[in-house]
Amino acid sequence: MTHKHASPAARVASTDSPDSSVGQVELQFVTFDGPDHVLNLDGGGSLSPVQVAYETYGELSESKDNAILVCHALSGDAHAAGYYGHSPDEKPGWWDILIGPGKPLDTDHYFVISPNFLGSCNGTTGPTSIDPGTEQPYGLSFPFFTIRDMVEVQRWLIDHLGIDTLSAVIGGSMGGMQALQWAISYPERVRGIIPIATTSRMSAQGIALNEVGRQAILSDPKWLEGRYLKDDPPARGLAIARMIGHITYLSEESMHQKFGRRFVNGDGRSFNFSKDFQVESYLHHQGDKFVRRFDANTYLYISRAMDYFDLETDHGSLEAAFSQCLSSFLVLSFTSDWLFPAQQSAEIVRVLRKLGKEVSYCNIGSDQGHDAFLLPGHRMGDLVSGFLERLREGGAP
Amino acid sequence: MTHKHASPAARVASTDSPDSSVGQVELQFVTFDGPDHVLNLDGGGSLSPVQVAYETYGELSESKDNAILVCHALSGDAHAAGYYGHSPDEKPGWWDILIGPGKPLDTDHYFVISPNFLGSCNGTTGPTSIDPGTEQPYGLSFPFFTIRDMVEVQRWLIDHLGIDTLSAVIGGSMGGMQALQWAISYPERVRGIIPIATTSRMSAQGIALNEVGRQAILSDPKWLEGRYLKDDPPARGLAIARMIGHITYLSEESMHQKFGRRFVNGDGRSFNFSKDFQVESYLHHQGDKFVRRFDANTYLYISRAMDYFDLETDHGSLEAAFSQCLSSFLVLSFTSDWLFPAQQSAEIVRVLRKLGKEVSYCNIGSDQGHDAFLLPGHRMGDLVSGFLERLREGGAP
Repeated sequence: MTHKHASPAARVASTDSPDSSVGQVELQFVTFDGPDHVLNLDGGGSLSPVQVAYETYGELSESKDNAILVCHALSGDAHAAGYYGHSPDEKPGWWDILIGPGKPLDTDHYFVISPNFLGSCNGTTGPTSIDPGTEQPYGLSFPFFTIRDMVEVQRWLIDHLGIDTLSAVIGGSMGGMQALQWAISYPERVRGIIPIATTSRMSAQGIALNEVGRQAILSDPKWLEGRYLKDDPPARGLAIARMIGHITYLSEESMHQKFGRRFVNGDGRSFNFSKDFQVESYLHHQGDKFVRRFDANTYLYISRAMDYFDLETDHGSLEAAFSQCLSSFLVLSFTSDWLFPAQQSAEIVRVLRKLGKEVSYCNIGSDQGHDAFLLPGHRMGDLVSGFLERLREGGAP
Repeated sequence: MTHKHASPAARVASTDSPDSSVGQVELQFVTFDGPDHVLNLDGGGSLSPVQVAYETYGELSESKDNAILVCHALSGDAHAAGYYGHSPDEKPGWWDILIGPGKPLDTDHYFVISPNFLGSCNGTTGPTSIDPGTEQPYGLSFPFFTIRDMVEVQRWLIDHLGIDTLSAVIGGSMGGMQALQWAISYPERVRGIIPIATTSRMSAQGIALNEVGRQAILSDPKWLEGRYLKDDPPARGLAIARMIGHITYLSEESMHQKFGRRFVNGDGRSFNFSKDFQVESYLHHQGDKFVRRFDANTYLYISRAMDYFDLETDHGSLEAAFSQCLSSFLVLSFTSDWLFPAQQSAEIVRVLRKLGKEVSYCNIGSDQGHDAFLLPGHRMGDLVSGFLERLREGGAP
């Protein structure tokens, strides 16, 4: 049983938006409930009901064969493109460079679905949601979930929308993990898989960086074993976790270009522990901004789901993991990404090729680091367009 | 005026030590006091008296021309080689692979001096020292100091030992910064400079990583604006800072080799936020160990001194910085070091060559990351030996 809380967002041409924008969009919600929709999780727990927040852009064709699923990364949400129209200086959705009329995920052709993933704090059921059993927020009583569990909830949404087969699943970073998981969980339901700047298994270095972020949160006295109040969260710990994150999203080179050793005040060294350098000021700004929009317990859960992502261990080997895949793949990495280095993508490609799967790969030249997948100025868009075009023509990618 | 607190350590052959060890060693102290020894600091403050803790290995020749100065890194100390002989399972000094009879810094030929640097918490005057004005520990009233200030105190020590010209100054990481500063501050007093895994200016990424570590300390409620008691320090914050440090000391590859995705318990995922992975356990162990031997305020000061290191800004350009240098250089970097990447060493070499200085450079193949300079198993030792031999023979390096 499903309850729909809002009508699908129509694409409204806004006078403020350039022609290539999807225009005004609306966050939609659906709640999955009842015996057919008990989510049994990898970690042993279960959830019911499960609400999903999502956006859609473009129109679903009559034959329902033009849908593309967009998967977001750690701190992302359903708002991938367009504007809510609430304020004049509003920034567009997080992947507006990729989604819109005439853009690589061309909303003149495709019906693009962007759900907020399971366990987030941006509309889909997660640790900040109300536990129907206690009528209090779940907090740390929220059950542990994995990337596979996220994909299961996305599959419910696809079923709800009446879509049998997706044209493609695309995502960067943790979104790429979900795309890979789709290829494995539902091989017959997706034609193209586009994992970007991601990995088939979280590296020791990645786990280490996540653990330091978690420790910053767990060590904040305001964390209170996860029972903090919404208006008095462990803000300093969460900000530190985010600062670490932002260091890993940039490259040494892009940090040098953006900030170098420039001082906040022209005069130079303050000889104290305040923010002397612009790079420090940037990190503090990112940390503070994050605290206003994200939940600390949620960060703990999601980073753990990322740590646990390991297709090799799940299936015995990467060959075994991909052996039943039927999709075509476009695997993309970036030369300066040190959080998910190119060799981790190359390993996915090596195994897919060994198995005789259809796969294209490009290690895109960029000095923007991991963040490149969110930024313009490189070949990602053209490569995605080309791949989707070949998929439409039914040829090998 | 100087006060010597202990007689120089004789090299005592210990039955437990291999032949290539300097054997039992003793930490020595000297205090610089009086009008000739007021340390006027780059940050505007001044210090007097200044105590220096140091060790020496080998014998100073009669002509006092066989001395090598060893400079340690951020969390190091004067104990670079040999044993104190306090416990049977004692580990040798931190650079025992390099220092000893027959080793690259051959104590059969050289008199090796290893001081603890200014501002440390391991014997030399620093934030944990007693301020003679208040008879309380300095804490945050300790004046800010720079790498140049550290070198000034080392020069006092060299003067005190009656040494006019050093055969070489050698150091890795922050120790390499001191070596470079020696070449600039006292060009006529050192024949060979060996900066290893270092830079002529701290990068934006390096500053960013230091700032996150500092924020972890400053956010710890036990930090108390720096007025914590010695037996109740901001341990969690300092441990987090150290965990970040250790991630940067290893490479993605060495982390993969050391830990991979191995679990602490064979059974795998705990589905909670405890230490599931061996890499998490390693970081916690390193953090906890560090807290027992290091001081949080000291960490703040030293990391700031590192941030402020910038020979280009100090002198207008790197060319200007090195223009008066008379020493020969051996510059070493490691291929997998991402904290001080090889191109930062290559830039030093480029400028020295442009200026016509004598310089050898090797980017040593290693997957051990920044930590490689502390570890055996690569060419560093041979390259140092060869350079020192050429210096002895008076030829170009």
